[in-house]
Amino acid sequence: MANIDLSQATRLLNHGPTCLMTSAHGNQRNIMAAAWVCALDFTPPKVTVVIDSKTYTRELMKAEGTFAINLPCVQQIELVKKVGSISGRDLPGTDKFAEYSIQTFAAELIRAPLVKDCVAWLECKVIPEQHIEDSYDLFVAEVIAAQADTRVFNDGRWQFDGHDDLRTIHHVAGGAFFATGMSC
Amino acid sequence: MANIDLSQATRLLNHGPTCLMTSAHGNQRNIMAAAWVCALDFTPPKVTVVIDSKTYTRELMKAEGTFAINLPCVQQIELVKKVGSISGRDLPGTDKFAEYSIQTFAAELIRAPLVKDCVAWLECKVIPEQHIEDSYDLFVAEVIAAQADTRVFNDGRWQFDGHDDLRTIHHVAGGAFFATGMSC
Repeated sequence: MANIDLSQATRLLNHGPTCLMTSAHGNQRNIMAAAWVCALDFTPPKVTVVIDSKTYTRELMKAEGTFAINLPCVQQIELVKKVGSISGRDLPGTDKFAEYSIQTFAAELIRAPLVKDCVAWLECKVIPEQHIEDSYDLFVAEVIAAQADTRVFNDGRWQFDGHDDLRTIHHVAGGAFFATGMSC
Repeated sequence: MANIDLSQATRLLNHGPTCLMTSAHGNQRNIMAAAWVCALDFTPPKVTVVIDSKTYTRELMKAEGTFAINLPCVQQIELVKKVGSISGRDLPGTDKFAEYSIQTFAAELIRAPLVKDCVAWLECKVIPEQHIEDSYDLFVAEVIAAQADTRVFNDGRWQFDGHDDLRTIHHVAGGAFFATGMSC
């Protein structure tokens, strides 16, 4: 695992992988799957994320002003399906991390937990844009810290050869996914 | 090739493929590669695209109010690299379509040409959002027509088995790409 220079942070997202968004506020935390995440700018790095107004994640990220994008890999596919199929609000007295035994570690700059065994992590600070949040559920955020698994991201590039279990994933529809494929 | 029901149009983009954007206004037309394209909403289907203010594509799409997203496949990788490495403004007296012998066909509802041998096509109408266009080069658009190659998109899903040459592509960095990989 290594810190990624912020000038290269958007390279983690160029290929359009599906993400796990984590958030925390007060003593509440949540995790959800999100496919509609996209790079927006290089320096400082920015991203867009689409987060439905009914989600618990949105409540926490709006209250805290920060969230994390975790990039899961092939060996976490069942976890991605699980956290994408239930709301954290429907687990009174516990949360998805406890319910599904999801291991986490502390972020560098924000409160949201980072998910172990993912292959990259982007810590993000919401740039308030009320109109597009209200109109489109669309959020703009600046990436303020980034890390990646050096087995598959080094020299500023994803390189998955020899690490099929660590390939990132791409949502198709209805809980079906593709792995990131061969170089071409 | 078949028309795609608009309620399923965002499924063409869920997996984060790199796109070819085409635009036309008056007797001018252009094509560029764009990796920062993302689904935004289901019904009516909407997308976001990030288009630098200096590009010829932006000039044409702003003037016309429409543009097309073409999804290229593995067998078009050299074409994607070519159109992504030069501006249409730098080809006085001709354009990239003529320069690179790019075959096109007419869109259903808009003036932008659609690129032959791609595997999906989304015709888009810009929803003006001046603030985010100016601040982030970020555009919101509604998908008003969509088509796909039925060899690889049917029953509302991408299914590339047996068609490796028709797999969509994902930009890594600096002109390197991954093919969309195996189901997982």
